[in-house]
Amino acid sequence: MTDEPGRIMAGEMAEQPAVLRRILDEGAPAIRAVAEAVAARRPRFVLLTARGTSDNAALYAKYLLEIKLGLPCGLTSMSTTTAYGARPQLADVLVVTVSQSGGSPDLVASTRAAREAGAITLAVTNNPDSPLAAVSEYHIDILAGPEKALPATKTYTASLLALYLFVEGLRGGDGAAAKPLPDLAAQILARQDEIRTLAARYRFAERMVITSRGYGYPTAKEAALKLMETSYIPALSYSGADLLHGPLAMVDNVSPVIAVVTEGRGGAALQPVLDRLRGRGADLFVVGPGPQVEAASTGFVLPVGGVPEELQPILEILPLQLLAYEVTIARGQDPDAPRALAKVTETH
Amino acid sequence: MTDEPGRIMAGEMAEQPAVLRRILDEGAPAIRAVAEAVAARRPRFVLLTARGTSDNAALYAKYLLEIKLGLPCGLTSMSTTTAYGARPQLADVLVVTVSQSGGSPDLVASTRAAREAGAITLAVTNNPDSPLAAVSEYHIDILAGPEKALPATKTYTASLLALYLFVEGLRGGDGAAAKPLPDLAAQILARQDEIRTLAARYRFAERMVITSRGYGYPTAKEAALKLMETSYIPALSYSGADLLHGPLAMVDNVSPVIAVVTEGRGGAALQPVLDRLRGRGADLFVVGPGPQVEAASTGFVLPVGGVPEELQPILEILPLQLLAYEVTIARGQDPDAPRALAKVTETH
Repeated sequence: MTDEPGRIMAGEMAEQPAVLRRILDEGAPAIRAVAEAVAARRPRFVLLTARGTSDNAALYAKYLLEIKLGLPCGLTSMSTTTAYGARPQLADVLVVTVSQSGGSPDLVASTRAAREAGAITLAVTNNPDSPLAAVSEYHIDILAGPEKALPATKTYTASLLALYLFVEGLRGGDGAAAKPLPDLAAQILARQDEIRTLAARYRFAERMVITSRGYGYPTAKEAALKLMETSYIPALSYSGADLLHGPLAMVDNVSPVIAVVTEGRGGAALQPVLDRLRGRGADLFVVGPGPQVEAASTGFVLPVGGVPEELQPILEILPLQLLAYEVTIARGQDPDAPRALAKVTETH
Repeated sequence: MTDEPGRIMAGEMAEQPAVLRRILDEGAPAIRAVAEAVAARRPRFVLLTARGTSDNAALYAKYLLEIKLGLPCGLTSMSTTTAYGARPQLADVLVVTVSQSGGSPDLVASTRAAREAGAITLAVTNNPDSPLAAVSEYHIDILAGPEKALPATKTYTASLLALYLFVEGLRGGDGAAAKPLPDLAAQILARQDEIRTLAARYRFAERMVITSRGYGYPTAKEAALKLMETSYIPALSYSGADLLHGPLAMVDNVSPVIAVVTEGRGGAALQPVLDRLRGRGADLFVVGPGPQVEAASTGFVLPVGGVPEELQPILEILPLQLLAYEVTIARGQDPDAPRALAKVTETH
């Protein structure tokens, strides 16, 4: 054991292939059972509740639920319940609360209130003994093992995979498409040297813009959060369409842009935005397919091994976690010691 | 007519008291009629669809609908429909689309798809002759008059007031609490010199963080967008609770913070965040009540004249619009000429 900066975060990033494999091998039957029980209740709407990294996982689930199941979804504005005492009418509503620790008092309070208001409640956590799991009718354990680094990494990808398997279960699928993920994740993480070289580019960046569209949009948000938590670079994330509605004014040759290009419809819908960025001479880093990387200033060719677009977010965040880590190291900071953060954030 | 920088934006900001009065005097009966017709359809869930500034107005409506009516709400992830062809089940769902121009093709397409899927559709626009108004079952005209400046100002406050009156109408209220707004808005806008002095503080800022909680959160997001569109300062907005879940690591004495403190429960819920920021020595600018401004590094005491918390967002954005304008002028840029923006953004 050394005091090497970032040792804890590096160790947890490296565990991700094993965590994904554990979920597929050991966690899937329990997730499927929860999905079947929830499906039998026939929810008509879904509200997703989370904060921080888990909020980005919740947004991923929102895309899955809307696209795969045609279920209208919303992300909870938690203060409506905790500060204003709103008592929404929640019959037929599935409330999914995502939290690594399952310990934040406001999440517990809002989930309890939702259950009392008639919602079907599901907690997705890394701790089956947590207060959040206790107040929820259903619980999914993401089986990531203890997470000690302040920047969450393995619990993010574990939450995505657990939520994917849950949504697959709701629609009667078996989630077999996820099988290649552990090996692909290992391949990507083995390319840390590539990312270390790329990180030099952002050694002196004063701000970054991260964009994507569709399934990749939660990745853009999570990458921005990771960069801010570790390196303190202000990183602004936008869906490609929103970027064109205002913040594009901020992008120029001093604001590097990272684009997450999924192989599929989301990546195709991002194309006009990529063209516009290139037309402005933006410094563009692409995570995605080879031809998109070649057309950009730089990038990381993501091996997706034929997995469908909706599973690519579990892979495409990996080089961006590594990037946050390497940029932070390059700046002489310690990714394990972000200023001001506590692992369990007690918001009320 | 001169070529004075920012003349168009300044003129439209100054029109706001008159626009608010026009909505109250001339627009309110039509809005109430729409609200009564929609209420009779008994929607059980609301989806709000918008982009850019209008998305912040939609978020304000989400708080109102959840708190005042207990209606679960979601913000639409538009690409689920436009890129992935999702066909959500929308019986009993009210879909509210907010757009200044009513002209963006993706908003028109997603609203048409929602109507075909059985939704009750309502467009809130500044153009009753727009394609969006045409495809929607109901329409509310925000009566702001032509908006020519690229940074939207008067259409934002007009959208908020129209949405407030709509939600009041849904619950059978008369919206009388809004009567003092035009005079209060005029009082605030008359204090532009105060803001000009404050703007000097941000002449060389490289980034800003804007936070609030509850009803003030859409204001924080809109203020960040306004600052980015005009001055290109990267401005990151967070709900107070989310700020504690990560991005706080980025706040230090080189990241000035603006806090929007409503007089009411949202402001009270923000208190622990303000204390934490002060404890870190953050440079804090408060828009809100006198005592909160006094406890901060600087601020703008907002006269609210007893209007309830839910109406304060219509006032508290005004000093922040002026701030975006004045910071931009101080930097020698032209608020009327943001790089790269077109007034009607055609995203698909």
